Amino acid sequence: MKERLYIYDTTLRDGQQTQGVQFSTPEKMQIAAVLDGLGVDYIEGGWPGANPTDSEFFDARPKLKATFAAFGMTKRAGMSAENDDVLAAVMNAGTQAVCLVGKTHDFHVETALGITLEANTENISRSLAYLVAQGREALFDAEHFFDGYKANPAYALETVKAAFDAGARWVVLCDTNGGTLPAEIGEITAAVIGAGIPGDHLGIHTHNDTENAVAGSLAAIDAGARQVQGTLNGLGERCGNANLTTLIPTLLLKEPYASRFETGIAVEKLSGLTQASRLLDDILNRVPVKQAPYVGASAFAHKAGLHASAILKDPTTYEHVAPEVVGNSRIIPMSNQAGQSNLRRRLSEAGLSVEKGDPALGRILDVIKAREADGYSYDTAQASFELLAREELGLRERFFEVERYRVISERRRNARGHLVVESEAVVTVQLPSGEKRTSFFKNEHAQEMSDDGPVNALWQALKQDLGPYQSLIDDVRLVDFKVRITNGGTEAVTRVIIDFEDDAGRRWATVGVSANIVDASFEALLEALNWKLTHDGAVRAV
Amino acid sequence: MKERLYIYDTTLRDGQQTQGVQFSTPEKMQIAAVLDGLGVDYIEGGWPGANPTDSEFFDARPKLKATFAAFGMTKRAGMSAENDDVLAAVMNAGTQAVCLVGKTHDFHVETALGITLEANTENISRSLAYLVAQGREALFDAEHFFDGYKANPAYALETVKAAFDAGARWVVLCDTNGGTLPAEIGEITAAVIGAGIPGDHLGIHTHNDTENAVAGSLAAIDAGARQVQGTLNGLGERCGNANLTTLIPTLLLKEPYASRFETGIAVEKLSGLTQASRLLDDILNRVPVKQAPYVGASAFAHKAGLHASAILKDPTTYEHVAPEVVGNSRIIPMSNQAGQSNLRRRLSEAGLSVEKGDPALGRILDVIKAREADGYSYDTAQASFELLAREELGLRERFFEVERYRVISERRRNARGHLVVESEAVVTVQLPSGEKRTSFFKNEHAQEMSDDGPVNALWQALKQDLGPYQSLIDDVRLVDFKVRITNGGTEAVTRVIIDFEDDAGRRWATVGVSANIVDASFEALLEALNWKLTHDGAVRAV
Repeated sequence: MKERLYIYDTTLRDGQQTQGVQFSTPEKMQIAAVLDGLGVDYIEGGWPGANPTDSEFFDARPKLKATFAAFGMTKRAGMSAENDDVLAAVMNAGTQAVCLVGKTHDFHVETALGITLEANTENISRSLAYLVAQGREALFDAEHFFDGYKANPAYALETVKAAFDAGARWVVLCDTNGGTLPAEIGEITAAVIGAGIPGDHLGIHTHNDTENAVAGSLAAIDAGARQVQGTLNGLGERCGNANLTTLIPTLLLKEPYASRFETGIAVEKLSGLTQASRLLDDILNRVPVKQAPYVGASAFAHKAGLHASAILKDPTTYEHVAPEVVGNSRIIPMSNQAGQSNLRRRLSEAGLSVEKGDPALGRILDVIKAREADGYSYDTAQASFELLAREELGLRERFFEVERYRVISERRRNARGHLVVESEAVVTVQLPSGEKRTSFFKNEHAQEMSDDGPVNALWQALKQDLGPYQSLIDDVRLVDFKVRITNGGTEAVTRVIIDFEDDAGRRWATVGVSANIVDASFEALLEALNWKLTHDGAVRAV
Repeated sequence: MKERLYIYDTTLRDGQQTQGVQFSTPEKMQIAAVLDGLGVDYIEGGWPGANPTDSEFFDARPKLKATFAAFGMTKRAGMSAENDDVLAAVMNAGTQAVCLVGKTHDFHVETALGITLEANTENISRSLAYLVAQGREALFDAEHFFDGYKANPAYALETVKAAFDAGARWVVLCDTNGGTLPAEIGEITAAVIGAGIPGDHLGIHTHNDTENAVAGSLAAIDAGARQVQGTLNGLGERCGNANLTTLIPTLLLKEPYASRFETGIAVEKLSGLTQASRLLDDILNRVPVKQAPYVGASAFAHKAGLHASAILKDPTTYEHVAPEVVGNSRIIPMSNQAGQSNLRRRLSEAGLSVEKGDPALGRILDVIKAREADGYSYDTAQASFELLAREELGLRERFFEVERYRVISERRRNARGHLVVESEAVVTVQLPSGEKRTSFFKNEHAQEMSDDGPVNALWQALKQDLGPYQSLIDDVRLVDFKVRITNGGTEAVTRVIIDFEDDAGRRWATVGVSANIVDASFEALLEALNWKLTHDGAVRAV
């Protein structure tokens, strides 16, 4: 018989405290739906009354399988719970659960609130009792509990016992400043259980200021706590909260937790975890963290040559869980660290099957090494890697040649005396038939356009008229552009990596290198079109 | 009497296993100097012989206070340590310390190596004995030790005892796949000590696949290990290694570690930690992780209203350590006090003395916030910051105006049929006298020039003829150029940061932002000339 462990998500409340994060109501609805689909037990939506977005979200009354929770604070001194208008706004959201934060650290009661310890304890007790009387599931967020316990254990325990005795379903021990290390969290959680609050009424809420938010949560669970709070992608105040994107698969897949606990999340649901994480990044317009545990693009990337060759024999040699279980995938990047087994693996991912011992493998590795020394990088630019390999394997088709391009960027005053920035480009290609085609593009209304730069102008001109290939490249879109100055031999050169996508939902990346940033970009643009034509089965149009 | 705890850095070896990371030799030299300045005990430089860059770095023989270590693997079966050419390449690097990785998990010995358990133990024993006989400090990286111990504790212990008995100064327990949770790492480390390898000969090497690399390291130290391995900014294979940027301040500042241990790093050195972390990101052209513990831009950002008001009363209310101790700073969005004193300090560094309470301080902060929201960054671009402040203080001189620029980049075939890439630029400026001057620059022999790009052409044209100011700008040289795609509001924009120097040995940096990379660069070039004219006392030439 497994014990029940509850997952409490606070992405929409503490996650919104992340610097630079401000969710709109539709975004909150979207995130809540993702969390609910995953199966978390509680979704905390925000603080009704604290700001217009939070109020609007509660007014929208999202329909959830999870228990919906509103956040607020314990009533203020000198008034009853019934008469506290801040608390009233929280109650009016009408959620099944209400979580109130209160002080447990004597220093904060005296410094931040400026009231007596007794008055604070009474505020907690009365507020929680009021929630219970109103028929709500009552939670108490014990702010600064660990620091408070270290400073004055008797008082800290008095506050949480007051909440529990008043009927709180959960007392949540918060490491608000994020400075408590896991061993200490474990010991103090055990002490609270020893003082009479059962573990199945205790929650843990940690922050990542020492990179131990996940470990601190596990330490509290080891000690007996049965609710864990966190956020998707570890959003949250300062360094963030405990990262549920990491905690959830750890609790579901790894021992001793997998055998011991049951949560509201079915193991099969984990296959949607990577997508959920990326969706949140999309909403926030953030570049996903490549090295994120479980869900990062690099989480199952095996770069060391020794690792890659063993992975080919048995993936468990260098993977603690299987990537597909969390909806992620394995990557064997190409680099000068890697040997032939990496290379064969990567070629087969590109649909190119090459026998072990084929001399082309050595040639491809040599070309890659030489080009990496020139400043190229093929870890992410898989499409450029594939074209390079096709070249050495005699499998590269030449669809068209670029005769010439010319790009102009200009800043000037227009007829009305306004400063304008414009770019224009002309590209001439020669088709296999010998026919030449010239295309022109200009940003006519530069100041209103989001991309008035030379690379965009070149791209628009290049893909405007490729004759017989046109229908195959019409749906190619440029989605990301990365530039860095690097060393090519002894000279500084510009490396450009560009991501593309098409209507079939494919994404591919190419790389270009040159001392000239425009020329480096052009190389990457050209490779992208060649890759697309290769994959869509274009036949060389003679 | 404090116990000695050793910090072993592997940024240049395991850190280089990060997907997308490829250090050049000058970059390795620069990172090694930063690590050495910080005071880590060991710097592992790479694997001599495994790839050209690593070999070149060891050939350069960096001068370090730290113990310099080369990485390699134990000798292969069927040959002596003396006759193994892979091991010979490692020895030939001539480092004081050598760290050899070897198998400890029976499954890997049989699956990946395909040799008997006895042969593997002998490889370990002979290899380590060989290092010792050659007078090197010998380290054994016990690969997959925790997984190996769980599968076959007797064999795993046999391998590490073989290394220890052969004279290894350190046996490093590696959680290679990153799947072992902290509690288990602690228990198994204690078991190894119980089996006869003293803690002051044990190291710990963890990976972040469950976000527990820091916690696992602490658990091993708690159990008795006295060497900890990691990387700056947590670089490393897959999800990265234990993050030394987090571990170092935790070990030096927080209990029980601060009172118990002494490391090679003085507490005062921590004030350089944030800068060291950012420097590594600069080298990698990565956007620094805002939520990184201790060193992230958000690590001491207090967004919640309740937090911010308490922070103003006493910063310890919501901070586990003081930001200045790690070279970071506090951010209170929408606030002022801390902001203004920071600002006054930075202005005085630029030679601008502004009284406390001057309303210009608030205006400058507002402009900086607005421009940062547009994508600007003033962390390194001190010259652009100074010009912005001078503008608000009414101390900015207008030396000349740019009427127009136009830049062309072209790829074409020349008369002899060779492909050439060329750029040309024309710039028109108006002097205060009303006189207009137009300058032109073209790369005539593009293929032989190191910089045939549009930004260089613009720079050459711009500084060719500035009339009365010409003698003051003749010695300005462009020394570094960084490009990053970032967010300006909701649009992706290009941010360019350029470093300059002059014959007086001054160096300064400016920033430009635009959707157009050429225009962003031009803005930074222009600011650089303005800064130089301001500082060389140019008088507006009417």
